[in-house]
Amino acid sequence: MYTVEELQNLIEKEIKQRSEQLLLKTPVELYKPIQYSLDMGGKRLRPVLLLLSYNLFTDDVKPALPAAVAIEVFHNFTLLHDDIMDKASVRRNRPTVHIKFDANSAILSGDAMAFQSYKYLLECNLSNMTPVFDLFSTTAIEVCEGQQFDMDFENRMDVTAPEYLEMIRLKTAVLLACSLKAGALLANASVELSEELYRFGENLGLAFQLQDDLLDTFGDQKTFGKKIGGDILANKKTFLLIKALENASPDLRSDLLDWIQKEEFNPQEKVEAVTEIYKSSGAKKLAEEKVEIYFKQAMKILEDIQLDSAVKQPIKHLALKMLTRKH
Amino acid sequence: MYTVEELQNLIEKEIKQRSEQLLLKTPVELYKPIQYSLDMGGKRLRPVLLLLSYNLFTDDVKPALPAAVAIEVFHNFTLLHDDIMDKASVRRNRPTVHIKFDANSAILSGDAMAFQSYKYLLECNLSNMTPVFDLFSTTAIEVCEGQQFDMDFENRMDVTAPEYLEMIRLKTAVLLACSLKAGALLANASVELSEELYRFGENLGLAFQLQDDLLDTFGDQKTFGKKIGGDILANKKTFLLIKALENASPDLRSDLLDWIQKEEFNPQEKVEAVTEIYKSSGAKKLAEEKVEIYFKQAMKILEDIQLDSAVKQPIKHLALKMLTRKH
Repeated sequence: MYTVEELQNLIEKEIKQRSEQLLLKTPVELYKPIQYSLDMGGKRLRPVLLLLSYNLFTDDVKPALPAAVAIEVFHNFTLLHDDIMDKASVRRNRPTVHIKFDANSAILSGDAMAFQSYKYLLECNLSNMTPVFDLFSTTAIEVCEGQQFDMDFENRMDVTAPEYLEMIRLKTAVLLACSLKAGALLANASVELSEELYRFGENLGLAFQLQDDLLDTFGDQKTFGKKIGGDILANKKTFLLIKALENASPDLRSDLLDWIQKEEFNPQEKVEAVTEIYKSSGAKKLAEEKVEIYFKQAMKILEDIQLDSAVKQPIKHLALKMLTRKH
Repeated sequence: MYTVEELQNLIEKEIKQRSEQLLLKTPVELYKPIQYSLDMGGKRLRPVLLLLSYNLFTDDVKPALPAAVAIEVFHNFTLLHDDIMDKASVRRNRPTVHIKFDANSAILSGDAMAFQSYKYLLECNLSNMTPVFDLFSTTAIEVCEGQQFDMDFENRMDVTAPEYLEMIRLKTAVLLACSLKAGALLANASVELSEELYRFGENLGLAFQLQDDLLDTFGDQKTFGKKIGGDILANKKTFLLIKALENASPDLRSDLLDWIQKEEFNPQEKVEAVTEIYKSSGAKKLAEEKVEIYFKQAMKILEDIQLDSAVKQPIKHLALKMLTRKH
């Protein structure tokens, strides 16, 4: 059995090797942004989840490495295109691809990454790849749907909590779920077990994203990596904002709406005021409870999976780590 | 055996039905641009080639329809993203997707189309889909490489004829070749025959693109569909321009370079002058000869394919039609 750290090292090495191979291809103008994007690092959560899931059923994870790379390349493709759409200029303390290179390179290199992820997947050379391809393609479309909902919400003030939860399910949770299910399918696990792992990943992903929203407002600048209050300044329709609008007293609600509509303001002042409303309206507490509900649900599904509990330990360990990264 | 026209009608109906199904999905903001893009029409060359190739080996083409749709959806995805990159505002007499909607929608809907094409491909449900997926993904990456070379050539004055031919092979020819090979693979044809059809498509595609370049300068405005002289005004490094720079007398060459470098000019005057240089330098003749060489090569490959010549008639018919559309 591999530990999370061992898998992280394994995947990191594999990605480095693959991206160096890509740099040997032409035109370099297409492959340089891909290498830059893959080189940005990150926690490699999705490939690690795939390998952990594969490792539940098979001792040697090496045959699943190409699929793990595929998931990470796909994930980085979505970041790359999202950054163009969101006009984000910094990711992981480095200029985003469309800033470092240009928008055209970012679009086209992203496209090539999407297809390259299928090429990596194909290396696994399973007798029946159809279910894996189907899962992967369906998930990819769902991620696009999630991103579109996210963009649509920017222009709406009536986004409901269920709509928001569905958006983050599509944009974030399904890819974590897909990683786990793909690992199981590649290991020839039963459809039932693969489905259970998918549901585990979905719930974990929802908890993870809601937690990320909480950290964006209440996290510690040093460990969070991004600037605190970004969602508030962007008037992002997060669970916190939706719940605050739903539950705040009329006065607080009107204060909150004022802050959202104001075109000129002191950013720090806005972040502090809205943060305070999130607390006093009970929105923060509701969000924390929701994280807890999804996380417990994920843990229950994992517990119920008919496998030795020792084998499930590394997945449990990673899930806990994912949900406590602020502390 | 189906005629080209029958297949065109079949594929047109199938695409219409598929795009209506997509419109039932949410978010509509993601699916509307896809429907708009698929609804733009065009000759549906690639899916027709796939079906013609399939029909060489199998009487009923219906089982291959999803793959034919996949190829067309993929092709339209490339047009959609290329139009953003090229800042093209009109395609087939209608506003391009990023103009009609916006750049973000065009990027994201394009992404979803790429993955949707895999979903359609999966519907074919062949026992071994791996070779088809591999071909499709490899081709998709090559098309991206072709587009990148094309963009890189904009900033270069030293593009050689072999470089240009490799660019159009990647950007245009391989997808036609892929369509033909995929049709054969889906019909369980031998690897050898599938490869021969690929080579036929590659040569046909090269002839087709070089012919398209000729039409851009020497075509008839009414039947060509695009404005004549577009490549000249954009200083596009076509085979014509490359050969004119190589072969023109020193005086003509210097005239040509002047026109390329001029920032202010009368467009019609430039088009007329450069067109004249293309003729007098012999570049036009060289390009026409090159079209002929590739077309003859394609026809020879088709002839040599070990199948009844009557069965190959519809493909031959389409190939001839593709190369004589100016008349």
